[in-house]
Amino acid sequence: MRAVTFQEPGRVAIEERPEPEPIAADDAVVRVDASGVCGSDLHIYHGRVQIEPGFTLGHEYVGTVVAAGDGVTGVSEGDRVLGTFHTACGMCFFCRRGLYQQCDEARVFGHGATLGSLQGTQAELALVPRANMTLRRVPEGLSDAAALFAGDVMGTGYHAVVAAGLQPGDTCAVIGLGPVGLCAVMAARASGASQVVAVDTVAERLDTARALGAHPVHATEEDPRAAVKELTELGGVDVAVEAVGHPAALDTAMRLTRKGGTVSVVGVYAERAEVHMGVFWIKGLRMISGRANVIAHLDSVLAMLSTGRLDVSPLVSREMSLDDAAEAYEVYDRHEALKIVLRA
Amino acid sequence: MRAVTFQEPGRVAIEERPEPEPIAADDAVVRVDASGVCGSDLHIYHGRVQIEPGFTLGHEYVGTVVAAGDGVTGVSEGDRVLGTFHTACGMCFFCRRGLYQQCDEARVFGHGATLGSLQGTQAELALVPRANMTLRRVPEGLSDAAALFAGDVMGTGYHAVVAAGLQPGDTCAVIGLGPVGLCAVMAARASGASQVVAVDTVAERLDTARALGAHPVHATEEDPRAAVKELTELGGVDVAVEAVGHPAALDTAMRLTRKGGTVSVVGVYAERAEVHMGVFWIKGLRMISGRANVIAHLDSVLAMLSTGRLDVSPLVSREMSLDDAAEAYEVYDRHEALKIVLRA
Amino acid sequence: MRAVTFQEPGRVAIEERPEPEPIAADDAVVRVDASGVCGSDLHIYHGRVQIEPGFTLGHEYVGTVVAAGDGVTGVSEGDRVLGTFHTACGMCFFCRRGLYQQCDEARVFGHGATLGSLQGTQAELALVPRANMTLRRVPEGLSDAAALFAGDVMGTGYHAVVAAGLQPGDTCAVIGLGPVGLCAVMAARASGASQVVAVDTVAERLDTARALGAHPVHATEEDPRAAVKELTELGGVDVAVEAVGHPAALDTAMRLTRKGGTVSVVGVYAERAEVHMGVFWIKGLRMISGRANVIAHLDSVLAMLSTGRLDVSPLVSREMSLDDAAEAYEVYDRHEALKIVLRA
Amino acid sequence: MRAVTFQEPGRVAIEERPEPEPIAADDAVVRVDASGVCGSDLHIYHGRVQIEPGFTLGHEYVGTVVAAGDGVTGVSEGDRVLGTFHTACGMCFFCRRGLYQQCDEARVFGHGATLGSLQGTQAELALVPRANMTLRRVPEGLSDAAALFAGDVMGTGYHAVVAAGLQPGDTCAVIGLGPVGLCAVMAARASGASQVVAVDTVAERLDTARALGAHPVHATEEDPRAAVKELTELGGVDVAVEAVGHPAALDTAMRLTRKGGTVSVVGVYAERAEVHMGVFWIKGLRMISGRANVIAHLDSVLAMLSTGRLDVSPLVSREMSLDDAAEAYEVYDRHEALKIVLRA
Repeated sequence: MRAVTFQEPGRVAIEERPEPEPIAADDAVVRVDASGVCGSDLHIYHGRVQIEPGFTLGHEYVGTVVAAGDGVTGVSEGDRVLGTFHTACGMCFFCRRGLYQQCDEARVFGHGATLGSLQGTQAELALVPRANMTLRRVPEGLSDAAALFAGDVMGTGYHAVVAAGLQPGDTCAVIGLGPVGLCAVMAARASGASQVVAVDTVAERLDTARALGAHPVHATEEDPRAAVKELTELGGVDVAVEAVGHPAALDTAMRLTRKGGTVSVVGVYAERAEVHMGVFWIKGLRMISGRANVIAHLDSVLAMLSTGRLDVSPLVSREMSLDDAAEAYEVYDRHEALKIVLRA
Repeated sequence: MRAVTFQEPGRVAIEERPEPEPIAADDAVVRVDASGVCGSDLHIYHGRVQIEPGFTLGHEYVGTVVAAGDGVTGVSEGDRVLGTFHTACGMCFFCRRGLYQQCDEARVFGHGATLGSLQGTQAELALVPRANMTLRRVPEGLSDAAALFAGDVMGTGYHAVVAAGLQPGDTCAVIGLGPVGLCAVMAARASGASQVVAVDTVAERLDTARALGAHPVHATEEDPRAAVKELTELGGVDVAVEAVGHPAALDTAMRLTRKGGTVSVVGVYAERAEVHMGVFWIKGLRMISGRANVIAHLDSVLAMLSTGRLDVSPLVSREMSLDDAAEAYEVYDRHEALKIVLRA
Repeated sequence: MRAVTFQEPGRVAIEERPEPEPIAADDAVVRVDASGVCGSDLHIYHGRVQIEPGFTLGHEYVGTVVAAGDGVTGVSEGDRVLGTFHTACGMCFFCRRGLYQQCDEARVFGHGATLGSLQGTQAELALVPRANMTLRRVPEGLSDAAALFAGDVMGTGYHAVVAAGLQPGDTCAVIGLGPVGLCAVMAARASGASQVVAVDTVAERLDTARALGAHPVHATEEDPRAAVKELTELGGVDVAVEAVGHPAALDTAMRLTRKGGTVSVVGVYAERAEVHMGVFWIKGLRMISGRANVIAHLDSVLAMLSTGRLDVSPLVSREMSLDDAAEAYEVYDRHEALKIVLRA
Repeated sequence: MRAVTFQEPGRVAIEERPEPEPIAADDAVVRVDASGVCGSDLHIYHGRVQIEPGFTLGHEYVGTVVAAGDGVTGVSEGDRVLGTFHTACGMCFFCRRGLYQQCDEARVFGHGATLGSLQGTQAELALVPRANMTLRRVPEGLSDAAALFAGDVMGTGYHAVVAAGLQPGDTCAVIGLGPVGLCAVMAARASGASQVVAVDTVAERLDTARALGAHPVHATEEDPRAAVKELTELGGVDVAVEAVGHPAALDTAMRLTRKGGTVSVVGVYAERAEVHMGVFWIKGLRMISGRANVIAHLDSVLAMLSTGRLDVSPLVSREMSLDDAAEAYEVYDRHEALKIVLRA
């Protein structure tokens, strides 16, 4: 079968790979109909996250079950399914507390040996371990392009606001309007946020945020704090989402949050950073962070997508063929698309 | 000043009353521009809730502050304001836990000696104790008719689903589509419910529910359980709202709820009732009940009304003059209107 | 192997049964060192809960793993283990929300075909499905008698107060001082309850409650409401545990609870019951109910038992031989023991 | 009356001050029987926190009401009372959400103009604004020395673990064993923590922690991470309390916390600090911070103190006369006492 593999920084290729088969009782094999290219893939593409040359990329997918072990009970051969970007065992200390993203046995698709040596989903076929936890049937009427958001980007946007405890009527700010940030904007609106302030420096993204019901604010040409002051009675939002992964964005998030509010960090951090603990302490803020718990949110996100409460179509800017993956990565790297869907 | 007073079961009158003045430091006096007639008023009108003849009715209002004691800091003379249906001291054990509806000093407007001897708001002027807790400025652009929902019916609809812990993507059933039930439908939708099943026997109410995005189900001509089974993967909803106050409605609510779900009882109970504790126990349900905490929810509800996340205009079916209060009660009693607004 | 089997109401027997073997990959077989006789067993013994004659009884146990399928990862052959009274799949909708007690595939040991046809643990060997979810290694230094409480009675006592949201400093009442009620008393004290009022009619049980730090109140010779009024500033407790399963106990629980408090129903209900919904509504109470989530609480309960924060030794009133099971049931039925441990 | 006033860094004095009288309706005046010297006082004493020379110090106190305005309803003249270290209005946005420590009108006793110009309580008499929110009657049998802990240090220790969501059976680490850290150790134990690891460098403090039931670990001579690994199955604690206010302590707290756990920052920060956001993100930690919500916790803490669930007597190392305040500050500054109580 054909698969999109990492070769070296800046280069991916289509290569032939052996077809996977179920090994464990709860393994499934999925024929991939559509797979997404995501910001995390770019980290690998640029060499910032290192994986083995030849490793198959991709972790967003929708497809059809073509084989399933004896222990797979949730889905059957022939089912049209979508999956989450990582697996979870369902039984360890963390899974038993519903912290699936912290599962001791978690494996992330397409991220090499560091994250569990699980080949990616930008391929004709994908081996899916722990199928009972990670696969779900695609609800009728949901497009491929929408479905593959559920287990990754939209699950993360939902997590950003719901795990932060946003209540209906609350105000929210989202710093960084990549796909995750825009999904957070959508999730906040759909969850009853009265005001969503969306901060970025790219005009197109700000326009998309406006179309989604947010108040767009240019991070440098406008003054986010002044905008928040004007829009909120309290001079700060209840929840601020940091969807960049940069200390300056974190600083903005903290400054836009009201006393006693929550900063929700979904942007990725790997290093030390200077944080204004004084502001954090004086305001009595709360901060949550880390990988989103997409397995826990999957049913809810799917229900919202399939009933139209969430609509990700504005985010799918381009569909391309799996064979054109090299070009797709270049296009995505040039920020010419918010989300590219590769069709096998 | 003129005031709508209870005379005897089935009869209200317009009477002259002395103009109120602030007594305590945190009292305010409000010139009432519009006041609602509510289902609770009907309980008094029918004599089911007993109050003293001559007592002024009404507990929903919007108006203008005309006098305020020294201790009133949140609003000022001349402010256009709305109020909650009851007062709270802000300092007792219950207030300190945010359970304002259980305040040891709570007084309900227009409900006679039993609930605090606080004259009602269907009058030209109203004395408002604890003004800092119960009054809020009307956000710009919000109509009188919308504003007076915030402190009573819409606050109760919001409470019904939010205090029940409804999460974005959850499913919800609402039993009873009076104004409170319809507000619960709206609140559920605005809070991200993926499906809302609305149960009643009145065609117009079912139509309104459909227009608000719910699945209407006739309580006797259709089968609510079958409808819920079809609409939900689990055969039961996450949250069922009992907005009637009758054991049969409670039974339906319990049967429509999934295992581990929540039954939210906003319908009023005063007596013993037969409850299927077996179903309750086997399913491991949770039940919340009692008067809604409208003071706690007031900021959120107002923010949602003023930004259009909630829109109560479909519920205001008639505006009448304060002088026509006797007729208004008759119209409301014949269920010819969902909400009547009396204008002074 | 020998097993304690149900014969007919009032009669159990020791019978020979084939030795179980692991079938599914996540099955284990445990050589049972000690097994408890529990109040639920009495329901079967009396014929109130009907099971097939010849079915093996028991659902509390501690022992040693003698065989384990390939998929069993949490424990190994030779490990000293304890188990929960029921199994859970870890993967269904309910398990994914941590509601293990509502698992769609849950099976209860020793309760016949109705609850999953899973042979009981009052035997020399027990087949344990879903071993990863239900078995845990016994912490060093914990006695057999203490360990077998973790997965059933103590797990239920912990659930009764912790799932009810008891906070350190809160007051608590426990109605019914059987083993579950006494475990709730212990859990409340260990969780920081400032006052625990323990209500029953049996002098010995009241004495035990006093020894555990509670205020014993005789249900009929004394006045529980007066006692609670004296001990609490508010005239009601924050959390009342109904550990009987009788409408009169539920009524007491509701009357002892303060406004806005929680009634935690761990006593078993199967039928309709008259409930004072008026009291429930006026006070704005919250009620939780159903089977305890012992799998979710297992780590916490074990940690508290092994560090001495909980000490169940006052509850183990008798150890007997498995061969004397018939006598053990008679003794237990005469309420001559709070907990009988059968040793193989 | 005599009062302890700040003069210049390193020097306090006893000065004569006019006797305060109630001004606002909810003011009270308290004759102070005992007042504590606290770590926050040292910040002022050292000039790190700047206040006006001549300002009266102190914010922990117990005494007798000698005058009360008309609006004071919770306590009466002659009542023996204790107070919280700050006031709250009970009515602003933050108070209405129970975030009393973030009250828009909050004033801290004895902290000069920056924190509300409210004269301190190390004096013969103290003016207490917002008496309904901040004063509580001392429960019978509670000593002065114990009572004055409730509204400050013990309230903060309780907040550190309870606001962090510690559940019975959880493990906890406390970094920094000053009075607040030791109170956090006590609160964790009393709330059902199975293991409490207490980290400091001072032998006496580690001894006190051991006596309180914790596992003492020397921060530099031992290895806190190794100790936590040995004591917890997961290699990390559920909740880590940072009770120092220093980046190194924060770093330790983050490293001792398990994946998905909570870091509770009660140590004070005023500046930027380098934080290992990579560790924070990868582990998916949660952080709470800021001034403790002692008003919200006051009833619970008092209930635990008066029933012996919490016992602060090991922390009161010295009682001195108000007239010896200068010496008391010197003794406290030399760390010769954990808590000094000044008696008028």
